[in-house]
Amino acid sequence: MGNNLQAMFNPQSIAVVGASEDNGKLGYTITENLIRFGFPGEIFPINQKYMTVLGRKAYPSLSSVGKPVDLVLSAVGASATVDVAEECSRSRSKAMVAYAANFREVGEDGRKLEAALNEIADRTGLSVLGPNTPGFINGNISLNATFFPFRVQKGNVAVMTQSGGVGGGIYYKALEEHMPIGLWIGVGNRSNLDFGDLILYLGQDKTVDVIGIYMEGTERGDQLVSSLARVIPRKPVVLYKAGRADSADRLTLSHTGSLSGSQGIYRGVLKQAGVIQVDSVAELVCACKGLAVAGEPKGERIGMVTPSGGGSIIVFDLLMEWDCLLPQFSQDTDRTIRRIMKNANSVVYKNPLDLTTTGFEAGFYGRVAEALAMDVNIDIIIAVFPIHKYFPPPDDKFIEIRKKVGKPIIVYWIAVDRPNHEYENRRKVLEENGIPVFLLPEEAAWAARTMAVRSRSMHPAP
Amino acid sequence: MGNNLQAMFNPQSIAVVGASEDNGKLGYTITENLIRFGFPGEIFPINQKYMTVLGRKAYPSLSSVGKPVDLVLSAVGASATVDVAEECSRSRSKAMVAYAANFREVGEDGRKLEAALNEIADRTGLSVLGPNTPGFINGNISLNATFFPFRVQKGNVAVMTQSGGVGGGIYYKALEEHMPIGLWIGVGNRSNLDFGDLILYLGQDKTVDVIGIYMEGTERGDQLVSSLARVIPRKPVVLYKAGRADSADRLTLSHTGSLSGSQGIYRGVLKQAGVIQVDSVAELVCACKGLAVAGEPKGERIGMVTPSGGGSIIVFDLLMEWDCLLPQFSQDTDRTIRRIMKNANSVVYKNPLDLTTTGFEAGFYGRVAEALAMDVNIDIIIAVFPIHKYFPPPDDKFIEIRKKVGKPIIVYWIAVDRPNHEYENRRKVLEENGIPVFLLPEEAAWAARTMAVRSRSMHPAP
Repeated sequence: MGNNLQAMFNPQSIAVVGASEDNGKLGYTITENLIRFGFPGEIFPINQKYMTVLGRKAYPSLSSVGKPVDLVLSAVGASATVDVAEECSRSRSKAMVAYAANFREVGEDGRKLEAALNEIADRTGLSVLGPNTPGFINGNISLNATFFPFRVQKGNVAVMTQSGGVGGGIYYKALEEHMPIGLWIGVGNRSNLDFGDLILYLGQDKTVDVIGIYMEGTERGDQLVSSLARVIPRKPVVLYKAGRADSADRLTLSHTGSLSGSQGIYRGVLKQAGVIQVDSVAELVCACKGLAVAGEPKGERIGMVTPSGGGSIIVFDLLMEWDCLLPQFSQDTDRTIRRIMKNANSVVYKNPLDLTTTGFEAGFYGRVAEALAMDVNIDIIIAVFPIHKYFPPPDDKFIEIRKKVGKPIIVYWIAVDRPNHEYENRRKVLEENGIPVFLLPEEAAWAARTMAVRSRSMHPAP
Repeated sequence: MGNNLQAMFNPQSIAVVGASEDNGKLGYTITENLIRFGFPGEIFPINQKYMTVLGRKAYPSLSSVGKPVDLVLSAVGASATVDVAEECSRSRSKAMVAYAANFREVGEDGRKLEAALNEIADRTGLSVLGPNTPGFINGNISLNATFFPFRVQKGNVAVMTQSGGVGGGIYYKALEEHMPIGLWIGVGNRSNLDFGDLILYLGQDKTVDVIGIYMEGTERGDQLVSSLARVIPRKPVVLYKAGRADSADRLTLSHTGSLSGSQGIYRGVLKQAGVIQVDSVAELVCACKGLAVAGEPKGERIGMVTPSGGGSIIVFDLLMEWDCLLPQFSQDTDRTIRRIMKNANSVVYKNPLDLTTTGFEAGFYGRVAEALAMDVNIDIIIAVFPIHKYFPPPDDKFIEIRKKVGKPIIVYWIAVDRPNHEYENRRKVLEENGIPVFLLPEEAAWAARTMAVRSRSMHPAP
């Protein structure tokens, strides 16, 4: 199956069955998205009604292409999609996206169609994403194989979503936060490919460092857990599980035909498996961003430095609520910081280290942050920056520190006014250099907690 | 004190003591912000070293202005600030902002200075905001009396913050979310003016419909509670209380010299008083926005309509977790909806009403939403919109419905790509017409819950 999924997510050629010049049709949008977002491989529109579609030569059937295409996008209705699957096997294509709805989520007739689709996949070895899926995006190869008008971008985060709508919200927030989402996969009805299969594939995909999941539920919990057990030692998995209220089951059922299952059981099993569980779309995005941009910490101990007690108190507060560790600094570090700060008595020489404005005004901030980052007791650093003409944004010193100590540094930047391009550009430079920047205190705290939880699950206390 | 605070927050004339041409000085930034953000009243720079400051005639002293100014901004150090307070009383100014730090938050000497400042305020009737405050912004009169470079905007939300940093984060998020924050007040050390005083003032300020608070703690809990009791029947108060972890007390102390107090006690007392309590900066902003844009509901019963089961499941899920009520529709409404939808069996005729794409494609969405909004069992409406070329944004029909039924309508708009100005503009039109739009499911849910909590506290079950 690995080869099939390689062909699915990194195809060199794509056929769109049902490609159309009629812009009200799915086959138009799918074909247009391939072209518009710059997929560099071959594109074969399949539709016997057209000679060309959107300027590309059209073919009457898959087999008339004359060679196997890597990926077949089926932009036709439910019943015709079953036929497309048979054609895939005849023309030796190994991967297919089934966008059509009206399968098992709509009752007995749909269930029969879905069983037929599955039978073909099982018999022929075809891998099918969906049905009832918005498709996927692999921004790393400029491929938008969905019907959403999402910009593509490169990145080392893969997100799987059981809902196109929620997945759309995740994608929106990821773009807003510069979260490097490279791969976005709508799993749909998970008929042939379920979370477990995709997690195994992403586990060995070298472009993926962090896996984010929005899940409603699965009937194949054993497969899910065994896949997680294999992948989590190598890559962190962050998961937002919906359907927590029992009555939400009804909506889930109408939506992708799955029962969401008891939340209590899911939470326990997933925690056991080392999954990092989050409670909102924003948290999923910020948690993935921290790990993807800064990398994994070697331990869970957090050190925080701030010129603003008030600005940092929410971050600290949340970390305490979540039982994160903010240990004392080593004696060496304490001495170094006091020396740099000339023992100024406005400074609170503890962790969090509150320099007050003294440290900032005197230009000591970078040197103090470096001492803190080098502390043997500290694995994860949070540096707080106010926004103010007297408080310049993190300078290249922080990029130097990051490179030198190799530990994750999270910047919480208070109250950026976003239309200010100077700050936006600075933020990008920092993030390109492995320093994730957050603009709300809870978002910085989520990122730090995620790192701590990840570290704890990788190095459990004896 | 009401008159003093009217002069403070709606001054016609302002003096800046310590106004300066040196752009490294606070007195420069304060004066520059007054001019830059367009304060239309008189500005009197006070500094005997200058003939003019930033093009305005400068005065050697407050008394040399020759008339009382409404508001005195003291941009000098702690000790000199005490002298400025005396000068205010001599020149019959009634309101002053004390920006200087180094009062009680830094130990015995500071405590004495603060006591001296307080003694003057008590003796002369001067109202003092601060000390140790970033000041305030009244965007409704284009007045930025802080040292922050925040754009000003008009709006019916007043936010008080005990931390400039957190307040900055709130302001940033408010701008991002189009939350109509008109008044922003940094309370600082709350020496003369504490939360209780300011809440009473805001309670009778006709430009303010919703009060948001970020609080670490106060020593005057009785005053706070009695002010809340007077104001909350007329205006909702949304509060985010930090310092929840006991160890956060230390940071709070270093910061504004207050103890944050036991979180459990605060939560209970505030709930009793009818305060709407939230748990993050984003939630504070979204909660205030919902109430400020849509107004208060007449009851707490929520009706939801969606073309996307998946996109709405998180909203529904959170509402269930919080014990919100989503009652059955009345028989009349049910009949009307079935008639409009021609009894299509893809539709889930319950609350939430999942039209699936059928309703959208056929153009039924607005008519169905209208029927739902008119239901006698429903007080608050959530309408979900996917982003998709086949799903246009809410049209003027929704503005019509809003006007006709007079109930709050919240739009959750899935996955807007923000650089798309067409959507941004549409969002603005909706919000100007009383329909708040949210882009993440948790944010829409926060807004709806806030309305439900507000209604419940105003109309408790017998």
